[in-house]
Amino acid sequence: MSFAPLQNDTFLRACLRQSTAHTPVWLMRQAGRYLPEYCATRAKAGSFMGLATNVDYATEVTLQPLERYALDAAILFSDILTVPDAMGLGLTFQQGEGPKFAKTVRTEADVATLAVPDMDKLRYVFDAVTSIRKALNGRVPLIGFSGSPWTLACYMVEGGGSDDYRAVKSLMYSRPDLMHRILAINADSVAVYLNAQIDAGAQAVMVFDSWGGVLADGKFQEFSLAYTKRVLAQLKTEKDGVKIPRIVFTKGGGLWLDDMKGLDCEALGLDWTVNLAKARAAVGDSKALQGNIDPNVLFAPPEAIEREVAAVLESFGTPHQGAGTGPTHIFNLGHGISQYTPPESVKVLVDAVHTHSRRLRAQA
Amino acid sequence: MSFAPLQNDTFLRACLRQSTAHTPVWLMRQAGRYLPEYCATRAKAGSFMGLATNVDYATEVTLQPLERYALDAAILFSDILTVPDAMGLGLTFQQGEGPKFAKTVRTEADVATLAVPDMDKLRYVFDAVTSIRKALNGRVPLIGFSGSPWTLACYMVEGGGSDDYRAVKSLMYSRPDLMHRILAINADSVAVYLNAQIDAGAQAVMVFDSWGGVLADGKFQEFSLAYTKRVLAQLKTEKDGVKIPRIVFTKGGGLWLDDMKGLDCEALGLDWTVNLAKARAAVGDSKALQGNIDPNVLFAPPEAIEREVAAVLESFGTPHQGAGTGPTHIFNLGHGISQYTPPESVKVLVDAVHTHSRRLRAQA
Repeated sequence: MSFAPLQNDTFLRACLRQSTAHTPVWLMRQAGRYLPEYCATRAKAGSFMGLATNVDYATEVTLQPLERYALDAAILFSDILTVPDAMGLGLTFQQGEGPKFAKTVRTEADVATLAVPDMDKLRYVFDAVTSIRKALNGRVPLIGFSGSPWTLACYMVEGGGSDDYRAVKSLMYSRPDLMHRILAINADSVAVYLNAQIDAGAQAVMVFDSWGGVLADGKFQEFSLAYTKRVLAQLKTEKDGVKIPRIVFTKGGGLWLDDMKGLDCEALGLDWTVNLAKARAAVGDSKALQGNIDPNVLFAPPEAIEREVAAVLESFGTPHQGAGTGPTHIFNLGHGISQYTPPESVKVLVDAVHTHSRRLRAQA
Repeated sequence: MSFAPLQNDTFLRACLRQSTAHTPVWLMRQAGRYLPEYCATRAKAGSFMGLATNVDYATEVTLQPLERYALDAAILFSDILTVPDAMGLGLTFQQGEGPKFAKTVRTEADVATLAVPDMDKLRYVFDAVTSIRKALNGRVPLIGFSGSPWTLACYMVEGGGSDDYRAVKSLMYSRPDLMHRILAINADSVAVYLNAQIDAGAQAVMVFDSWGGVLADGKFQEFSLAYTKRVLAQLKTEKDGVKIPRIVFTKGGGLWLDDMKGLDCEALGLDWTVNLAKARAAVGDSKALQGNIDPNVLFAPPEAIEREVAAVLESFGTPHQGAGTGPTHIFNLGHGISQYTPPESVKVLVDAVHTHSRRLRAQA
């Protein structure tokens, strides 16, 4: 496969801790329900999985936010739970509710039947990656992604979302052996899955450890971080001689930056509870940092959005400038964008990131 | 008022950073739905508020867990939302759902009508405190409590629980002036309320900042911590010559221990994401630490519960021994106990805390 040359490499350069003229910005869940054009495509598709499994629809919605906003990266439109679905657990999305699995994984017998899924069942994802990459035509890079082994396990054991993670934590505290078995299979599955996305055209990959932050200290390291490491150890780091940056985001993981700074990846995602100046000091020169504005800022008037964007940029401080590598920042939300977000607020945010980050560099 | 002399002062001594023969233990929401005798009393009362506003019922359920377990403290049976209810917002609890307010506080006009409520409307709470203190007959100390100004504001603005805190954060980002006004009134109300609990017989007080952890770095300090400070500055620190320890618990606040170590209080509550050894090092000699086992440990078999209890105690390390003051630990969950908890698990936990903490002291 050959693709058009990349025109805006700001995001990839920042991932690799190289200087950029402005701080790149993209938003988690940037293709989503807050956009009327997304809702229209979804209505045509009939369901969320109908949307995610149709290459044309997935391509269409991935590109929609780029038509509106000067975003510096695109992210594959898909779901974090495609891998357990391919394992045979039967993923569905009821309207207005979260994901549900027809089967759960809770017993020794359930675990015994789990295996790394046949990647042919995920062909629709890889086809979407290639289709999106072509449609992007070099405009911005394309990010592939997966849920982390622990986050996938949460959904697989609970059978859906949870307020208290009672089922998955009960299993973890009662039968750590079974939990480790699930996580090992998940890690190997996620690695194969992300490598196939890279082969299909993903130019960076991100591991979403959305539920790592619900774990107790000690358990996070044992049941989440160890398996994120197992994924990273198996990932391709370049494709056709071009580096493929890897981003790890643990929601609620700010307390464990000391444990995460040694991860074999290029960037760490942070939520809004983290002070970027402290994180930069803690992580040192090893990683780019991605984040971390509160998505609820987007419900405020334009001046307030601009003020909060400036505060986040200034909290990180001036990124590395000139040749070589140094501390860099990729602007993002600290979590997925809310479906209730006014679309015009996103334009204010994206433009403020570009304008203010250029100003910061000029002042440095 | 005069009450029977205290027989077990372990909890109060640990709050004041004095040595104890074992690590004291109590559990957030220890009087609750996991106990069949609680459910029986609640059925008699007809509703949660019927239970909380009836002095005899509130006394009965507060003492129930002490009949089963060797707990080192009792905590007033009440709700964190009594204060906004007394402000006239109309608190109700629907079966199987969380709290709901009939009125919300979202506009300038709503805020203009807010005021510190007449404490006569909370007489039922103070009467319950006195009744419970008498019924305890000196067995263990009684803890009074309130929600923090920010946590109360979350419920007042949202009108109930929330997944995303969209309403309260929209107000905070859009109209910080209104938010500060609400928080100032809440802080002054909480201070008067807790002082009245102390007058009625509470021997320690705790501020539950249950939702402080949802705030962005910077906003936590401005909109939650500043108003917790405003409460603490107004609290009585002793009653009849006896010190009244003050405990502050911010769920999800582990990242901000540096900001909290200077609070004018005796103890900090911690959730299970915090490493107690690191917290002890961060907080230094200024505070007792309370916490922090994951409540889901109680769904594991007895040996696993004992193992996890030992891990938490050992993470803190040996507390101060001998004369004077030094680092101390009060064992607790990192959050309220789940309604699904097997009651027999709680006995295993409480006994393990006592046994293992004596063993640790003997080895030191």
